[in-house]
Amino acid sequence: MKIIITGAGGFVGSALAHRFINNTDFNLVLVDQSLADFYKYKDQLRIRLVEGQLQDSEVRAHALYDGADILFHLAAVPGGAAEANPLQSKIVNLDTTLLLCEEFSAVSRSRRFVFASTIAVLGASLPERVDDTSPISPALVYGTHKAMVELALADMARRGILDPVSLRLPGIVARPEVPSGLKTAFISNIFHVLQRNEPFTCPLSESATTWLMSIDRCVDNLVHAATMDSSLLPSSRAITLPALQCSMGDLAKKISQFLGNPSGLVSYEPDSNLEIMFGRYPPLETAAANNAGFSHDGSLENLLHCVFSRLEEHKFPSYIFGFNSHY
Amino acid sequence: MKIIITGAGGFVGSALAHRFINNTDFNLVLVDQSLADFYKYKDQLRIRLVEGQLQDSEVRAHALYDGADILFHLAAVPGGAAEANPLQSKIVNLDTTLLLCEEFSAVSRSRRFVFASTIAVLGASLPERVDDTSPISPALVYGTHKAMVELALADMARRGILDPVSLRLPGIVARPEVPSGLKTAFISNIFHVLQRNEPFTCPLSESATTWLMSIDRCVDNLVHAATMDSSLLPSSRAITLPALQCSMGDLAKKISQFLGNPSGLVSYEPDSNLEIMFGRYPPLETAAANNAGFSHDGSLENLLHCVFSRLEEHKFPSYIFGFNSHY
Repeated sequence: MKIIITGAGGFVGSALAHRFINNTDFNLVLVDQSLADFYKYKDQLRIRLVEGQLQDSEVRAHALYDGADILFHLAAVPGGAAEANPLQSKIVNLDTTLLLCEEFSAVSRSRRFVFASTIAVLGASLPERVDDTSPISPALVYGTHKAMVELALADMARRGILDPVSLRLPGIVARPEVPSGLKTAFISNIFHVLQRNEPFTCPLSESATTWLMSIDRCVDNLVHAATMDSSLLPSSRAITLPALQCSMGDLAKKISQFLGNPSGLVSYEPDSNLEIMFGRYPPLETAAANNAGFSHDGSLENLLHCVFSRLEEHKFPSYIFGFNSHY
Repeated sequence: MKIIITGAGGFVGSALAHRFINNTDFNLVLVDQSLADFYKYKDQLRIRLVEGQLQDSEVRAHALYDGADILFHLAAVPGGAAEANPLQSKIVNLDTTLLLCEEFSAVSRSRRFVFASTIAVLGASLPERVDDTSPISPALVYGTHKAMVELALADMARRGILDPVSLRLPGIVARPEVPSGLKTAFISNIFHVLQRNEPFTCPLSESATTWLMSIDRCVDNLVHAATMDSSLLPSSRAITLPALQCSMGDLAKKISQFLGNPSGLVSYEPDSNLEIMFGRYPPLETAAANNAGFSHDGSLENLLHCVFSRLEEHKFPSYIFGFNSHY
């Protein structure tokens, strides 16, 4: 089975690629601007690295030239960067994605296209309860372009030229502590800072609510989206993923307990903009996702176990321990 | 005041252009592939004709070069043609529209952009009652691209780079009896055929329901969208227009009464695809539109009066009687 992963150098893409990389059942095409972490696999015939910008048609042609069974499209200009440069977001998140769909459709038979969408398509002023009937109402450039692609994918599915699944990801933790262009970086940073036993100033209030998923469970869900029967999907082909729902106060308390930190490391200085955009997640019901076999981490304890196992691993060179999932 | 109208050679665009054409308060830029009907105005300094394809950047540059107060964007690949050629729809209905928005934003200060959207964004399997909370769920290429543009316009409004209004038009009657690429041509043809006292075979059932608006009332609503205070609009900037709701049987009966036709001219041979797509319009509530000052024709009698006055006029050369609205 042949798999293409765009954005394979990123946080989610890299974890996804490592799920397959030691399994000889799979041929992999990894695509990103930089794939330095994968150079060690360069000589393996079943792994092909394509470095470059996806908006470059030659890069897409190189990635797609002999087709694939599954394409995971994770490459994107993330939320904060998209907001700072809407034109760049349009080029990458909208125009390039639509071209990639058409080109993948032309060269592939099975055409399963797994698209990393986002809960940001639902917008900032969420209803009292979010479920599968909640309206699409993006409040930022990033969510707007993701929502536009979701509509295009639904239409391509209807026309039978692509077999897409749009997965709306919640906050995935714990991203590396580097500038990522994400407005929600603080939700990952709390894990890193508390692991170092350092004080953390949370830019949301203690009662702010969020939706979370571990990177390992995120990869589980992406793989499920790639292999599941499309008859289980709604005609929109868009799935709001289940997520663990917790308050920032609960999250901080559970992390400190898990790590055995002293109390008082976490203080709260809410930023009113961030609070409105990212601190008011209401109860979430994901019947369509549950019926289709997607799931969240089960408990905050499970999530913390995943996150800190992975952070422990990464204290050592990844080529020794690998990135393989704990699920 | 300067106004640009794209698609000015089309049914709606032409009626809109004629609303302004004899009023010296307005400078007009009319854009379409063919503007033959407007050649007689060529020598008027306040009317500029731009013939060409809007996807041609030089044509857009020519149309936009000195900006405008209002841009009506009516040019589109219509529903049937879009379904037959999705790529052409993408180029014109999506890509070109987004470029036009950006280019108009760059050259204009007021930036009111009136976009002809469609009730097709709501899809084919409509809920029991359609209102302003009904989900966007387009069932065809045309509605998909219109819905994608609606999302982009809402985001441009939020970012303050455009002052858009997306008007979701219902069936507008009576279009000329020519191949138009519209799947709903039969809804206009019933007016023409019965006016000639000829038998009409309706491809929907007698009990099929539809939403209608006269071309004159459509122009009223477009003009209102161009001049209204944007504070009356929802943040989506999308307005589902009010429409007269009637069954095909009622419509046929009222037309025959209005024209004094003999009975029995209309027979029904429902096409199951057309019936599903265009014959099951549920009750429609348009609170947002009503609050913002939009309206339908008031009664089927008013609508018939408009439609047949206009058809009468067009038996004579339009340059004698003009296309001026009856409202």
